[in-house]
Amino acid sequence: MSIIAVGSMAFDAIETPFGKVDRIIGGAATYISYAASNFVTPIRAVSIVGNDFPESEMNELKRRGVSLEGIEVVKDQKSFFWSGRYHLDMNTRDTLVTDLNVMANFNPVIPESYQGSDFLMLGNTLPSLQSSVIRQLKKRPKLIVLDTMNFWIESMPAELRETLSMVDVLMVNDSEARQLTGEFSIVKAARKILQMGPSHLIVKKGEHGALLFHENHVFFAPALPLEDVFDPTGAGDTFAGGFLGYLAKTRDISFENMKTAIIMGSAMASFCVEKFGPERLKEINQQDIDQRVQQFVELVQFDIDLV
Amino acid sequence: MSIIAVGSMAFDAIETPFGKVDRIIGGAATYISYAASNFVTPIRAVSIVGNDFPESEMNELKRRGVSLEGIEVVKDQKSFFWSGRYHLDMNTRDTLVTDLNVMANFNPVIPESYQGSDFLMLGNTLPSLQSSVIRQLKKRPKLIVLDTMNFWIESMPAELRETLSMVDVLMVNDSEARQLTGEFSIVKAARKILQMGPSHLIVKKGEHGALLFHENHVFFAPALPLEDVFDPTGAGDTFAGGFLGYLAKTRDISFENMKTAIIMGSAMASFCVEKFGPERLKEINQQDIDQRVQQFVELVQFDIDLV
Repeated sequence: MSIIAVGSMAFDAIETPFGKVDRIIGGAATYISYAASNFVTPIRAVSIVGNDFPESEMNELKRRGVSLEGIEVVKDQKSFFWSGRYHLDMNTRDTLVTDLNVMANFNPVIPESYQGSDFLMLGNTLPSLQSSVIRQLKKRPKLIVLDTMNFWIESMPAELRETLSMVDVLMVNDSEARQLTGEFSIVKAARKILQMGPSHLIVKKGEHGALLFHENHVFFAPALPLEDVFDPTGAGDTFAGGFLGYLAKTRDISFENMKTAIIMGSAMASFCVEKFGPERLKEINQQDIDQRVQQFVELVQFDIDLV
Repeated sequence: MSIIAVGSMAFDAIETPFGKVDRIIGGAATYISYAASNFVTPIRAVSIVGNDFPESEMNELKRRGVSLEGIEVVKDQKSFFWSGRYHLDMNTRDTLVTDLNVMANFNPVIPESYQGSDFLMLGNTLPSLQSSVIRQLKKRPKLIVLDTMNFWIESMPAELRETLSMVDVLMVNDSEARQLTGEFSIVKAARKILQMGPSHLIVKKGEHGALLFHENHVFFAPALPLEDVFDPTGAGDTFAGGFLGYLAKTRDISFENMKTAIIMGSAMASFCVEKFGPERLKEINQQDIDQRVQQFVELVQFDIDLV
């Protein structure tokens, strides 16, 4: 089972109430790859970087079973750079700097060796680039998952709606689901989104967990209550990587299995926020993941005995 | 098994994005009683009302197994009146009017017939009145549950700390838990509160569910995703009533059973918010409750099969 992961590979400068880092590795494709490669390989990355993206990071990804053939390296430009400051609640943040650099000319080309992949994760980027990736695939993947953000919902609604019509799972946060539909109620928003193309909707609510909608079914996965959320950057992409990684490993895209996959995604995200950047994701092993998932089981399991 | 429910019985005027009502029945003791009486009787109410509290409401409570002996009726005054307006997110509200009326002289006296009760629910009121109720009980109940609010945390910290040292379960919302401890992290706040007296802490997060802390254990119960939260007034008290009602019915105050009790409380609260005031709580029957609880089971249940 193989997963194509499309998205940025970047540098981030992050300020949280717990500290500050100047220039660390970030980007959607990076986080998705680090998370998903715990479950299956190869993860086939599609991205673009400049001449400043560290060789050591590329080697680390490769070592973990991430194919780099779909990563374009632009010799005379710099990598995408984002800088942001989180508020105390960690659910909101201000963007301080966005230097697109190489991302301004991102035009993903799917290598021949990536054809026939089973899963496709479209990280947040231009909706027209996301649909272009789908069109380049000769055989439709078993499952296509889409992430997007407020900026595209506002500035490119038509392109986004077209892309939406081509995917199976939309993954957004609660405010994006509201913005996309004009509905304040997440249940009503979900109903509308499930008529736009995706058969499944995942609404991410940060420290308040995530909801999965499909037909008339809904599933809720909590976030693990943590002492400190150190840095939420990349948590959404890590969640996506864990979710798709588990589905690929189990070769089962039923609603029932997606529930467990969301718990896996939540577990991976709970590691991600414990340190700056993808640092914590590089430290954990299978035993850590199993123990963390067990904590999720204990967190929500109860015996019902109607009396 | 019997429950003493201490708290206001009042009139509320409520404005939500869905409508407005001028003067409907409200109050903590009212909601607790309507919820808990689905599980056990008698519910022994302790409250104070004026000459304007409707006889019909008293009769309805009585019919459901609520003892009224502990309710003081003041002939020449009016009942407590509260008026508030909810914001669109329904988690925040502005208080427009607070007319204490009879509540200004509330000095609960526990009738002899209430002695020997197994459970005590101390609805939100002056901390010194809450501790006075505990002192009046000749035999300590199996479980004492305390609700409080920002106003008391700020204005009467010493009295509140004394009351806290006398109870088993504190039930507050997330912002109150933060305010009480000065900790932003709910996990850290919980650790501090569990050193103040209560052996259990329930943190209510409205539409984001509730957390139960005990020693090193934590349990999370989601709120049911609803199309519309029509009116959240009384949801917290209804939750408390369902929680205690279930514990009393099952005669089991273990952590494991409290998990299920929190699901029961959440189910009762999910009915409460569907209509203005306690209206919806008067309509439901055992079958409605069973069906709603089943929805909670489906909402969070997943099969874990570590692969």
